[in-house]
Amino acid sequence: MKKYLTEFIGTFFLVLTIVVTVNGGAGAMAPLAIGAVLMVMVYAGGHISGAHYNPAVTVGVCLRGACSWSEAPMYIVAQLVGAVLAALVGEYLVLNIAGASMPATAGTFSFVPGMLAEFLGTFALVWVVLNTATTKSTSGNSYYGLAIGLTVTACAYGLGAVSGGAFNPAVAAGVITAGMSGVANIGAFLVGQIAAAVLAAFAFKFVYGDRD
Amino acid sequence: MKKYLTEFIGTFFLVLTIVVTVNGGAGAMAPLAIGAVLMVMVYAGGHISGAHYNPAVTVGVCLRGACSWSEAPMYIVAQLVGAVLAALVGEYLVLNIAGASMPATAGTFSFVPGMLAEFLGTFALVWVVLNTATTKSTSGNSYYGLAIGLTVTACAYGLGAVSGGAFNPAVAAGVITAGMSGVANIGAFLVGQIAAAVLAAFAFKFVYGDRD
Amino acid sequence: MKKYLTEFIGTFFLVLTIVVTVNGGAGAMAPLAIGAVLMVMVYAGGHISGAHYNPAVTVGVCLRGACSWSEAPMYIVAQLVGAVLAALVGEYLVLNIAGASMPATAGTFSFVPGMLAEFLGTFALVWVVLNTATTKSTSGNSYYGLAIGLTVTACAYGLGAVSGGAFNPAVAAGVITAGMSGVANIGAFLVGQIAAAVLAAFAFKFVYGDRD
Amino acid sequence: MKKYLTEFIGTFFLVLTIVVTVNGGAGAMAPLAIGAVLMVMVYAGGHISGAHYNPAVTVGVCLRGACSWSEAPMYIVAQLVGAVLAALVGEYLVLNIAGASMPATAGTFSFVPGMLAEFLGTFALVWVVLNTATTKSTSGNSYYGLAIGLTVTACAYGLGAVSGGAFNPAVAAGVITAGMSGVANIGAFLVGQIAAAVLAAFAFKFVYGDRD
Repeated sequence: MKKYLTEFIGTFFLVLTIVVTVNGGAGAMAPLAIGAVLMVMVYAGGHISGAHYNPAVTVGVCLRGACSWSEAPMYIVAQLVGAVLAALVGEYLVLNIAGASMPATAGTFSFVPGMLAEFLGTFALVWVVLNTATTKSTSGNSYYGLAIGLTVTACAYGLGAVSGGAFNPAVAAGVITAGMSGVANIGAFLVGQIAAAVLAAFAFKFVYGDRD
Repeated sequence: MKKYLTEFIGTFFLVLTIVVTVNGGAGAMAPLAIGAVLMVMVYAGGHISGAHYNPAVTVGVCLRGACSWSEAPMYIVAQLVGAVLAALVGEYLVLNIAGASMPATAGTFSFVPGMLAEFLGTFALVWVVLNTATTKSTSGNSYYGLAIGLTVTACAYGLGAVSGGAFNPAVAAGVITAGMSGVANIGAFLVGQIAAAVLAAFAFKFVYGDRD
Repeated sequence: MKKYLTEFIGTFFLVLTIVVTVNGGAGAMAPLAIGAVLMVMVYAGGHISGAHYNPAVTVGVCLRGACSWSEAPMYIVAQLVGAVLAALVGEYLVLNIAGASMPATAGTFSFVPGMLAEFLGTFALVWVVLNTATTKSTSGNSYYGLAIGLTVTACAYGLGAVSGGAFNPAVAAGVITAGMSGVANIGAFLVGQIAAAVLAAFAFKFVYGDRD
Repeated sequence: MKKYLTEFIGTFFLVLTIVVTVNGGAGAMAPLAIGAVLMVMVYAGGHISGAHYNPAVTVGVCLRGACSWSEAPMYIVAQLVGAVLAALVGEYLVLNIAGASMPATAGTFSFVPGMLAEFLGTFALVWVVLNTATTKSTSGNSYYGLAIGLTVTACAYGLGAVSGGAFNPAVAAGVITAGMSGVANIGAFLVGQIAAAVLAAFAFKFVYGDRD
């Protein structure tokens, strides 16, 4: 339960920051704020739950053998509940900002480039998580949260214009709930993100082996 | 006395940076500068006073048992004196910047969304402080200042448009002194911030227990 | 092979981020995103390959004696393949961003200032790499990736307007492939970058000696 | 000699970045790039020379007893030579950027607010340096360069509009050489910066005592 509450809190603040910065006037600084909030929540929750805040990360970490498959479903439920609740709270706050509004119609992106952008960003994210937060050869480092958060910042600046830059099924659920991305995008989000988590886990196992 | 001087210095530079960046032309970079100055002052003062610079953090840390209630009043006095003095010095400096001015009328935000924004930002801040700076399982880390400072950056980009983004009663006193926020906002500031500090301390105790 | 795959992945994401942020609308934030992606890939790959992602770094690190000359050719091949592939994938993605396009004609900069800018940026980068990632007196630190990544961010903001700011022969190959820099610039890129790597290695040896 | 070369290199890149970002089109991102280059040079040179790159820091660190007064004059000479040479190289590069130019007339700021801004920024910087880089209670940390660099970023965003934001006599020499600040400002720079270094050293000694 302690782990699930931590996953809920971290994912809640990640999605809240996305909804409020993108629609509330943070403009070009939104990806920086989003990566920053992920970073701080990873540092805050890492010692409790591992700080996934992302079903694709949970899948990648379980494939690598650093978390247990039996906990995965409840991790993902906590992440999705946090994301959807944050979308609703974020919408309420945006509607109370003078001059700000939520998007009237949710955009739909083309499947192939959108799926590719989500694949690439999620691959980078899971690759960074596995290498910086689950190995003995990097254990005890102080940079894992910085690395994980700024992967999202960098990929959001780079790939966000193609697909919105979710790289995370819980974030996808949050932005669809908030009307910031079309329901029709859900296929591209899930295919790209899960394929990336699996491939990143295999690439990690190839370069690192089965060491702790 | 050494602790109180450190709290005074850190809170002074935090509020000074807020007043001068927001009114002096830093524009969209202000939240980055504000989080940065909090970060550097946390790193500078952490080994002396714990580097709270925020009465809500002092309350949360005392509830968690990582500081003594008997010191709390003087911590808060030092923070408030630093904040008010910084507001006055900051105003003087802004009035000496060509083309810059202090706001003529202080804005008042709606109570419920403003209080909610202050609650959420302060909850995130106290949650990050307790997990990164007061536990044995994360002790000796080099990231606590980065995490604490960038929590404020992320929340200021996200929630600042709703309530101004104080997340700190001393900052609230500073921005009201400088005429950047209405006196009528003081209720929303205090209710949201103190409720968040208490709830974050309980959430922390639930997930971490009474371990050191 | 594990090292070469790691070099391929890191250089791929570095060049992908360059192509997509510069042409896809990230504007003034592009150098921040580029330094961030280098930082996270350095943290992810450092324990596998040393995380060079740059033939000039490979030359500098080999001159310092911290990698083997026999591996250098395959490191450089992996870096160049990653860079060229990323340029093509990046172009495809940019062409799928509404309102974005790749440059119609690649610019050519003046040889002397362009070569000097590339020399200075690459010198700073190799100097930082050798001092933060190859010495016993700084070993075990958690800042090497942050330092390496933000060297590129700082130099791109400063020197990018002169030469484009590659500081890396693989990046030069990538931006020329993507049509973002003229083929005629290749001489200035290579002369400035390789001279800087050699000089930085000698400056490092002078100040640090032959210690581990 | 190894220490002086390191001080020369670090101060050179600090002033080069200032001249090229401020005049070359980095706009609102200049303070971020300037703090970043200071950070990376502190991390690169800290284990060799202590990485002062600033005569006011050299004075503060000597007053604290963490460097030797006999080395101070050559430290300051190396810093000033690096700064002036960087100003000249930076000017040359700016004149080779399309659409960029060096300022035609150097501005003079009012003595009292300008001196106060330089005092405050330099006090923050020396306070952070002494607490994060010269004490046993924080030794071995990985954050000192981040804290030192981002102090300059935060203060430049906040106080730069008042005085230009040098906080460093070598930087003052560099920006005056480059024509970016008036010769008449030299008094305000030196009085504010040296007074701050002395006061920060005394404040540090008061809170930390004479411990190592």
